[in-house]
Amino acid sequence: MGKVIAEITMSLDGFIAGPGISRKDPMGINGQRLHEWIFDKATEKDKAMISGIINSSGAVITGNHTYTTAIDEAWAGASPFDAPAFVICHTAPAKRIEGFVYVTSGIVEALALARRQAGEKNCWIMGGANIIQQYIKAGLIDELHLHVAPILLAGGTRLFENTGTAPIELIHDAVTTTPGALHTIFRFKK
Amino acid sequence: MGKVIAEITMSLDGFIAGPGISRKDPMGINGQRLHEWIFDKATEKDKAMISGIINSSGAVITGNHTYTTAIDEAWAGASPFDAPAFVICHTAPAKRIEGFVYVTSGIVEALALARRQAGEKNCWIMGGANIIQQYIKAGLIDELHLHVAPILLAGGTRLFENTGTAPIELIHDAVTTTPGALHTIFRFKK
Repeated sequence: MGKVIAEITMSLDGFIAGPGISRKDPMGINGQRLHEWIFDKATEKDKAMISGIINSSGAVITGNHTYTTAIDEAWAGASPFDAPAFVICHTAPAKRIEGFVYVTSGIVEALALARRQAGEKNCWIMGGANIIQQYIKAGLIDELHLHVAPILLAGGTRLFENTGTAPIELIHDAVTTTPGALHTIFRFKK
Repeated sequence: MGKVIAEITMSLDGFIAGPGISRKDPMGINGQRLHEWIFDKATEKDKAMISGIINSSGAVITGNHTYTTAIDEAWAGASPFDAPAFVICHTAPAKRIEGFVYVTSGIVEALALARRQAGEKNCWIMGGANIIQQYIKAGLIDELHLHVAPILLAGGTRLFENTGTAPIELIHDAVTTTPGALHTIFRFKK
């Protein structure tokens, strides 16, 4: 069975998006600068990392806030993922879009469905912060692949909040650095 | 002239101490776990890094909150630093202790005094968070040496807050990893 991986880019000061998120500006003010390692500053190493994520993922999990913010404009009305993407929502949207599975029965059920879909491949929890926090709190993530962009955004959506009250220990791998990011891997202790 | 370096250990979720800081528990609840790379888990590489900090620093800067929390118990009434340590405070304490210089004229003046003292060596701003934030906001730091401990503390004192409203770009070096920490270096763009 594959692994459950939360994979996301964060500023050095802990934000995964800038303030003022909207459909027109889904990464918030200056938030797009987090993704320079994927776009403007992408090196061969960065590109290989992106291919690695895509090729190793047999299912994607996303929160409803991310989905509704991104679907019309950033994603131009279609799934940007190669693998089926499970959207965790309270109510399925009236307009269903191919490539997405709308799950209204919570994060545990969504993960069970995604893992079944993924088989030997990984489940990629791609955000947003709230969904990743819920999965961390539930102890359901194997690895956190965190791309740290060398910028202080000074505001926005924090990745690490509401993860419970007890400390959670991790084990880190060696870090790969490219001009646009520190690519880190943290494994949750079992 | 030496460099101005803020050097501190932070949890992966951004805390430099746990909640409930007191003189008896200056790192707060579970905060001591941040420093395992310095103590219980220290490898030769970690020890060399600590010696490097100490040997390269010609002056230390600390905030008054850190000083008053640590001086009596954690530091047992004496300076733990090899170099003179400048304490930034509103009012100098009645009891002056050898090895400390009490500066009541603000962060800019404190840094000027510390740099003069340090000469060709570096000024090491060792915390707390508030003092580092003030120096970041004032654009007075050359490098941030951040030791990231692989733990989510889930609460405590955040390193990155109140750094202003505009994004601040940095350039990172390669990362050294030891079992207790990711040792990162970020340089502020000039």
